[in-house]
Amino acid sequence: MELSDVFEQIPFARLLGMDLHEAADGHAEGSLPLTAELSSNPNRMVAHGGVPYALADTVGGAAVVSAAGTVAPTIDMRIDYLAPATGEELHAVADVVRVGNSVATVDIEVTDGSGTAIATARGVYKTGGGEGDTPWLHEEDRDLLDD
Amino acid sequence: MELSDVFEQIPFARLLGMDLHEAADGHAEGSLPLTAELSSNPNRMVAHGGVPYALADTVGGAAVVSAAGTVAPTIDMRIDYLAPATGEELHAVADVVRVGNSVATVDIEVTDGSGTAIATARGVYKTGGGEGDTPWLHEEDRDLLDD
Amino acid sequence: MELSDVFEQIPFARLLGMDLHEAADGHAEGSLPLTAELSSNPNRMVAHGGVPYALADTVGGAAVVSAAGTVAPTIDMRIDYLAPATGEELHAVADVVRVGNSVATVDIEVTDGSGTAIATARGVYKTGGGEGDTPWLHEEDRDLLDD
Amino acid sequence: MELSDVFEQIPFARLLGMDLHEAADGHAEGSLPLTAELSSNPNRMVAHGGVPYALADTVGGAAVVSAAGTVAPTIDMRIDYLAPATGEELHAVADVVRVGNSVATVDIEVTDGSGTAIATARGVYKTGGGEGDTPWLHEEDRDLLDD
Repeated sequence: MELSDVFEQIPFARLLGMDLHEAADGHAEGSLPLTAELSSNPNRMVAHGGVPYALADTVGGAAVVSAAGTVAPTIDMRIDYLAPATGEELHAVADVVRVGNSVATVDIEVTDGSGTAIATARGVYKTGGGEGDTPWLHEEDRDLLDD
Repeated sequence: MELSDVFEQIPFARLLGMDLHEAADGHAEGSLPLTAELSSNPNRMVAHGGVPYALADTVGGAAVVSAAGTVAPTIDMRIDYLAPATGEELHAVADVVRVGNSVATVDIEVTDGSGTAIATARGVYKTGGGEGDTPWLHEEDRDLLDD
Repeated sequence: MELSDVFEQIPFARLLGMDLHEAADGHAEGSLPLTAELSSNPNRMVAHGGVPYALADTVGGAAVVSAAGTVAPTIDMRIDYLAPATGEELHAVADVVRVGNSVATVDIEVTDGSGTAIATARGVYKTGGGEGDTPWLHEEDRDLLDD
Repeated sequence: MELSDVFEQIPFARLLGMDLHEAADGHAEGSLPLTAELSSNPNRMVAHGGVPYALADTVGGAAVVSAAGTVAPTIDMRIDYLAPATGEELHAVADVVRVGNSVATVDIEVTDGSGTAIATARGVYKTGGGEGDTPWLHEEDRDLLDD
């Protein structure tokens, strides 16, 4: 199974309609269509801030996993909103800027379909530390990554 | 219409099942049930990082609007994850720590149903600056707040 | 040697006149006098943003070391400025909110001498991961902590 | 007076030995030599985290002022540390990514003399909102910018 397919199986990614296009060598890309239920406004489309965040967190995680080879829960993330998302889709591009044996740092840029910058995010993900069998990592999850 | 009702009309808040309990004087509280579609894992409940974030962003925004009296888009937010959310619900409490005439700063604590700290977030929201009729603020949105 | 004494030996802490009052059990406090050379303005005292940051980073690090028992370099930190620092001193109080075996999260509040909130910061520090003999941790540094 | 000269007059920038090389059109660059008093370690040079932060905050502010034409206090900043700074100098490059009429967002990259990435920061600065004669902006400060 491709790593991008694993991420598309995430229930919350499915709920938001995310599509992971690629995830390899510390780089990942994904997108989602801006359907009405993702708006922050009942009268028109202005994506709720949680939508570009969720896309950034997911695509950023895929980039880290592609570089570190392990399940990588988010430790912290900051997002800066640059323009309201009023178009038809969101696209995110993530690149790992540092991967260490305990954490990785990743940058994610979110644009709309026409290339306008919507948000820019930076996250730190856990790549090691060996805390055993946590809710984030059970044996069957390892199997998903190994396939 | 109560301010908390306005926030419950947000389509993305409805999609995630958010319930706003209160929003007044710079303080707001809200919650959501952790249904299977909000998980980051197809095999069990571990809430996707975007779920506590979306709750924090929404409840934080309600706290700011309750203090500043205007629509307040998020400028930036940082979230730190403290424990995986594996329970049945998430609860968020937001308190404004500073409100100025251009921005407000708010702290949000997210816990699970049993009181375990899940995440802590800090956001900055726009409270002024008069950029006119933006996608974030149309006349009919003002009407919602005035009711 | 007390842990607070170790932190007062840091050359940059000495340059800024920092005084570490306590550091134990995940809690630390410190202060510095606002001398003219710490201003951002040649005409009057408004502390440069780097001054409360440096105090927060240092006192936060002391809190983490007091909880984790190891040298703890900063991974990332966010600071929010709440009011200009125009008084005679800055005081910082740091409390660890989570300590894991790879990272710790700490909150720091910075006030002036009269109790006005100046800034609030949140940092993540590395507490494990065993990257060997780095510039952050040589044998003689361990000795400092062991004394 | 050049804008870069104004920033070099900042007392705290002088204390740290900062040199502002340029500041125009939303782009700024600056550097400082890593003298022993800027270390976090009494035994060798590992720059204290407050040093790249102070450089980033200052050079970022210069970039914002060059784009917005007004004194621009920092609202918040996040810094991620990528490698310890053990060399002879630090260099920072700042670029404004968004300037609005109330806030501006800026990215800053800090490297050592040999080009190694040391830290990456993102800040939000206040560019408007008209809070009158604050400690950050007196008449004589405006004069500095107008010269």
